[in-house]
Amino acid sequence: MTSSPSERFDVVILGGGPAGHACAVEASACGRSVAVIEASELGGTCLNRGCIPTKLFLGATDCVHELAAQAKMRVASGSIAIDLPALQDRKAKMLAGNRQAIEKDLSARGITLLRGRGTVVAPGMVDVVTAEGTVRVEYGDLVVATGSRPTAFPGMTPDGDRVLDSDGILDLSDVPQSMVIVGGGVIGLELGRFFARLGTSITVVEALDRLAPWEDPEVSKTIAQLCKREKWTIHTGKRVASLVSDGGRARLVLESGDEILAEVALVATGRGPVTEGLGLENAGCRLDRRGFVTVDERLRAADHVWAVGDVNGKAMLAHAASHQGAYVARCISGCDTGNYTPGPMPWCIYGAPETMRVGEMPAELEARGLHPRVSRAMLAANPIAQAHASVQGFVKIAWVDGRVHGVTAVGHGVAHLITQATIMVRDGWTAEDARRIIWAHPTLDEALRHALTADTTDA
Amino acid sequence: MTSSPSERFDVVILGGGPAGHACAVEASACGRSVAVIEASELGGTCLNRGCIPTKLFLGATDCVHELAAQAKMRVASGSIAIDLPALQDRKAKMLAGNRQAIEKDLSARGITLLRGRGTVVAPGMVDVVTAEGTVRVEYGDLVVATGSRPTAFPGMTPDGDRVLDSDGILDLSDVPQSMVIVGGGVIGLELGRFFARLGTSITVVEALDRLAPWEDPEVSKTIAQLCKREKWTIHTGKRVASLVSDGGRARLVLESGDEILAEVALVATGRGPVTEGLGLENAGCRLDRRGFVTVDERLRAADHVWAVGDVNGKAMLAHAASHQGAYVARCISGCDTGNYTPGPMPWCIYGAPETMRVGEMPAELEARGLHPRVSRAMLAANPIAQAHASVQGFVKIAWVDGRVHGVTAVGHGVAHLITQATIMVRDGWTAEDARRIIWAHPTLDEALRHALTADTTDA
Repeated sequence: MTSSPSERFDVVILGGGPAGHACAVEASACGRSVAVIEASELGGTCLNRGCIPTKLFLGATDCVHELAAQAKMRVASGSIAIDLPALQDRKAKMLAGNRQAIEKDLSARGITLLRGRGTVVAPGMVDVVTAEGTVRVEYGDLVVATGSRPTAFPGMTPDGDRVLDSDGILDLSDVPQSMVIVGGGVIGLELGRFFARLGTSITVVEALDRLAPWEDPEVSKTIAQLCKREKWTIHTGKRVASLVSDGGRARLVLESGDEILAEVALVATGRGPVTEGLGLENAGCRLDRRGFVTVDERLRAADHVWAVGDVNGKAMLAHAASHQGAYVARCISGCDTGNYTPGPMPWCIYGAPETMRVGEMPAELEARGLHPRVSRAMLAANPIAQAHASVQGFVKIAWVDGRVHGVTAVGHGVAHLITQATIMVRDGWTAEDARRIIWAHPTLDEALRHALTADTTDA
Repeated sequence: MTSSPSERFDVVILGGGPAGHACAVEASACGRSVAVIEASELGGTCLNRGCIPTKLFLGATDCVHELAAQAKMRVASGSIAIDLPALQDRKAKMLAGNRQAIEKDLSARGITLLRGRGTVVAPGMVDVVTAEGTVRVEYGDLVVATGSRPTAFPGMTPDGDRVLDSDGILDLSDVPQSMVIVGGGVIGLELGRFFARLGTSITVVEALDRLAPWEDPEVSKTIAQLCKREKWTIHTGKRVASLVSDGGRARLVLESGDEILAEVALVATGRGPVTEGLGLENAGCRLDRRGFVTVDERLRAADHVWAVGDVNGKAMLAHAASHQGAYVARCISGCDTGNYTPGPMPWCIYGAPETMRVGEMPAELEARGLHPRVSRAMLAANPIAQAHASVQGFVKIAWVDGRVHGVTAVGHGVAHLITQATIMVRDGWTAEDARRIIWAHPTLDEALRHALTADTTDA
């Protein structure tokens, strides 16, 4: 039973993360009445438990990495102590400030924010359980933007004691002496780098045959080399049989029988969609075998129901989510009648080294029956990388018929190349195009320029 | 008298800096026989006494700046000692390595390197005074790429004691307790930032009414605010009457009569062309009233004589020099018959804050009778700036008729925006264009994106 007469909105959005926020802003700009339903915190995983806190942790400890690099060259000496509780305070304040900014933004645009858990009770109708009781809202269009949460395989379920997921690790106020990380992807690498800078001894267990397994194999190789140089222990191609808290430690047993003990374990094996209890079946949605909401080429889950962001499983990235959210708002408003064609998707891993990737790499191009060629430039020749005493890494370009189809890089600060590379991939630059602008000197960007103008070889 | 029969080259280049090197590489690639005459060090000012050593010094001390920023937030504590003699050693090795790389590159391309001082003795003929005697070479085309050197106004001539130019300052191995810098431009700011990180107390005297006077006034204002926050003493609109070494100190007297004493003074008031003793008059060259070689719209100084880089005074930038050098090589080879149209020129100042600028700013656009509008995004809202605890600054865009004509920025790491902004200015992006790519999140680039999509106001 609802306690008040229901209100109707053109667009009701389940979830106030990047996808929901962007959708709300765009739909409102198109003149639609919009309500956002958020059961937890505005900003979603990205702001509260993902991109933003990890970037804060890495940015705040950049001094540790920079000092270590110069100390190796015997140019600098000294010591830095990071106050993790103070950093956690700073994180809490910064995230709260950003959440308030989102709330103000919604309010300034006349978007209604309903704080509570929303459930579709019938097509066109959502009940929201708020602190003040249940509110019923009717929608013209429903946008499901409920995001994702960490998932774990059986036998290694985070228990909140010594076995944690990324949410738990991000809230630690004591620096562990040792950490075993299950999963060598972006979450494991970024959090491992942060704790390594605080002095934690890092061990990574990755079931596939290399770290960052979705990156170009050469990038994975450089990442592994640099992790090993920083004394990480890396186990690739190893599967976990069990991971439990045991007497104040995390005890990990590999399928091989080998055992790894650490003060804390991070399970970073992936993320799954948040769909339970939303009544999506009442809206006509279907889930795929992994549990993600099935969408068509316009991101439609059912008639007048759309799913955007992590919950549709297309690309688990905040910027993909917000891009999808804005697209669907334009679809609902009739401003966009085409299929969803996002163009080249940028991917980055932060810390040291950074990685960036956009477009298709040689393996993907070959799988499509194409015959890519590649060109490279080494960061060793770049004066900015030299100045930061971090010369490992490269920029690598995948070409088809003389046009750029993909760019990847690994090394000092290379995430800064991502937007220019996105433009180059989208526009299919030729080597000659690289000569049609003046590149500032000295910049990291010149490594990209040199890769663009370097001789190509077979992939 | 020459000691051996003269050798003839299609292209003879006076100077092996960025302009000469790029010209040699391109001319050689076009099938021309090429000789480079270098009296001093390959790499020119940029490599040996300019961009590269300053970037090394700033990169090597980035840890000091990053620690200070986090210490202000009480997230980090500690201390860092920079070993300046060790850094000078590293500089010497790094520059030597880069010079060797250039020499190898020339050799691998079959380009002749003549080490010595070249003088045009008659049209088509250059004598080179080498360690082994004088060599005469004949040219089809002569390219003057002799660069620039620091200049000083009367009354403040560097004396190699306490009054130094940038060449002298870059070789210091003792950290001065105090430094007075005459000239608040890029050289003064970058070197001041480096020594401030080493603990030197900095005073800047600038004759014009603001620091970085060729930048957008809002950028100058932010630079000054941050310099003052770091305890710099800034005198703008003050002219120097005299600056001399006096009893182991630099003694500067302003025209107002006020006196400034410092352990060392840096004269960074500008740079002038290197033309003396080159016999340019024998090649038919003329110099303008400032002493720069006069060139036409194809960078021609006389029949079959060209002048590129700092020596023509068009843009005292390494990347402008190399761009001009490559253009002239194509002109000589008949591959380019158009006038020199470089497109948008990027400018950066490094350190903290960084600045970038490309295209035309509102003042320039208004001077052309246009009616620019501007949009801005503050770095305070950017998560990468937040993570580095350096949130002062902004990105500012100048628009004409809804298209980007210029971009500038000041703040943490903004030089990384320069290439993407160069593309946007060249292609005259609209706000809508910013929606046609996916921008990675979180990145500094998003500040540029927000400026592109922000509301515009009158300039």
